Amino acid sequence: MNRGNLPDLDDIVAASKRIEGVATKTPLVESPALSTRFGRKIYLKLECFQPIRVFKIRGAYNKISQLSAKNIVAVSSGNHGMAVAYSSRLLGKKCTVILPETAVQEKVNTIIEYGAEAIKYGKYTVDRDAKAKEIVSKTGATLVHPFNDADIIAGQGTCGLEIVSQLDDFDSVIVPVGGGGLISGISIAIKSLKSDAKVYGVEPQGAAKLQAALKAGKIVTFDSPKSIADGLIPSAVGDLTLEACRKYVDGVYSVTDDEILSAMKLLVREAHIFPEPSGSAPAAVLLSNREVEKLGERVVLVISGGNVSLDLLAKTING
Amino acid sequence: MNRGNLPDLDDIVAASKRIEGVATKTPLVESPALSTRFGRKIYLKLECFQPIRVFKIRGAYNKISQLSAKNIVAVSSGNHGMAVAYSSRLLGKKCTVILPETAVQEKVNTIIEYGAEAIKYGKYTVDRDAKAKEIVSKTGATLVHPFNDADIIAGQGTCGLEIVSQLDDFDSVIVPVGGGGLISGISIAIKSLKSDAKVYGVEPQGAAKLQAALKAGKIVTFDSPKSIADGLIPSAVGDLTLEACRKYVDGVYSVTDDEILSAMKLLVREAHIFPEPSGSAPAAVLLSNREVEKLGERVVLVISGGNVSLDLLAKTING
Repeated sequence: MNRGNLPDLDDIVAASKRIEGVATKTPLVESPALSTRFGRKIYLKLECFQPIRVFKIRGAYNKISQLSAKNIVAVSSGNHGMAVAYSSRLLGKKCTVILPETAVQEKVNTIIEYGAEAIKYGKYTVDRDAKAKEIVSKTGATLVHPFNDADIIAGQGTCGLEIVSQLDDFDSVIVPVGGGGLISGISIAIKSLKSDAKVYGVEPQGAAKLQAALKAGKIVTFDSPKSIADGLIPSAVGDLTLEACRKYVDGVYSVTDDEILSAMKLLVREAHIFPEPSGSAPAAVLLSNREVEKLGERVVLVISGGNVSLDLLAKTING
Repeated sequence: MNRGNLPDLDDIVAASKRIEGVATKTPLVESPALSTRFGRKIYLKLECFQPIRVFKIRGAYNKISQLSAKNIVAVSSGNHGMAVAYSSRLLGKKCTVILPETAVQEKVNTIIEYGAEAIKYGKYTVDRDAKAKEIVSKTGATLVHPFNDADIIAGQGTCGLEIVSQLDDFDSVIVPVGGGGLISGISIAIKSLKSDAKVYGVEPQGAAKLQAALKAGKIVTFDSPKSIADGLIPSAVGDLTLEACRKYVDGVYSVTDDEILSAMKLLVREAHIFPEPSGSAPAAVLLSNREVEKLGERVVLVISGGNVSLDLLAKTING
């Protein structure tokens, strides 16, 4: 697979033109309630307001719109699969998504609705990767990786472009980290345009693969990454995303599942939005962080997605 | 108060430039699940993804950005108040919102968060209108009407401009009707650009003020309009909105509160969005309408807002 080299600002600007009219330039709003609570301006970049309610459409459409293949395959815990299915449908391509048994049912349903074939397969990511390779070699399909790909990273970077265009000044941005595609793209865009702003990542304590990789200086694979944040538990970052994070990311926080759930409750009750657990992780940093001053006076939280299971949402409201 | 004349397409295009970067060009997506269920393509225009989670920001910002007054007053059941408070904050103006005792608490909280003064006052709209006039005469503030105003209608019309730009072809659009500002603006835009498309309104059975006015040929005032859809219960339409609806609207449906709640459940479960009752009313037409063929093969539902009370949302998920 040709994963390409790390994209630069020009690639991200080109991606933003490619995805225009497909991805939404999502709102960036101050939450006065959160600003008051945390004693600094808190802004929310509402990727949960994308057409598929998650940022992944940026990268997937940027990638797939450049492919000549008629068949597309993705391995996904849900959101990437939705993005690939949705983009394939718009571009008239056939799509297969290979999912873990534990995928959020609402996401599986949506993938099927978008006309893709959804296959629940195997216990581990390696099994699903093998299945994907089998399909690729049988059908000549193109595998679209969820994060370790220059076009995917460039697409996700358009979120960073927008933040810089929407907000005159800010001190830091906090970005959820799964495989690192979103934070790679955002950090490349922001460090290119506003080098004094800090970019921080946040991962679940049970899946701190970026922190492990940064410390080891190489990719570290987790046998059983675990978190309520189903979008943040790939077993490892990629070599491209690790390279971007080493160059451009200022630090990575860990948060517990309890902190993520408390953050989700806070966002539902006080910011009036309905994020999924992954999208709540940046607010969990504010709740848990004892060095909140480090974040500065104007902090942007990237609310990466809103594909929350209805059961969990009901519990969050009632609890 | 100078309510102006009915805006035309040029006014709506001018409004779209004025609100750029403040209001969002919201996604227009097909819901494959709803398309399957209703045997025709169903598209959702997601105004619940605006920065304040309701279309009202379009009209309010278009209006207030043209005012020289430093003090702004609004009489509102919630959403208009949020839009006026949010726009006033962005434009550095002082804002007072007069609300009914029954306003949804989440909306009242948001108005206060945006820095406006929120006054709960009186049992009836006439009481609140009187209070507003008192404030205007005391302070020189400008009263911003929620719908019967050319700049408000032009702002809401930008939603119609976007629908035409986002969808190559469609047969009909269904729009919730409160005072008629949104449907007036949308119908002016659509009939100017795509005259073969039909524009239908939907009102609660307990507040069918547009249908009454169209039938009587003049404004009909309801003593106690009633519905779970708290955004659709002003006591009457305005003379400007009545004029627009007479000219450009092809029909108006009534739906019951039970149908609205069923529609809300359908949208939450099958379209994966969280609309408020008012924003669910267009889907209620599909659920209740025995002449659904009349709507054609490609139907756009305007999901006007998503400021739902958490209690009601939890009930909808659990019920």
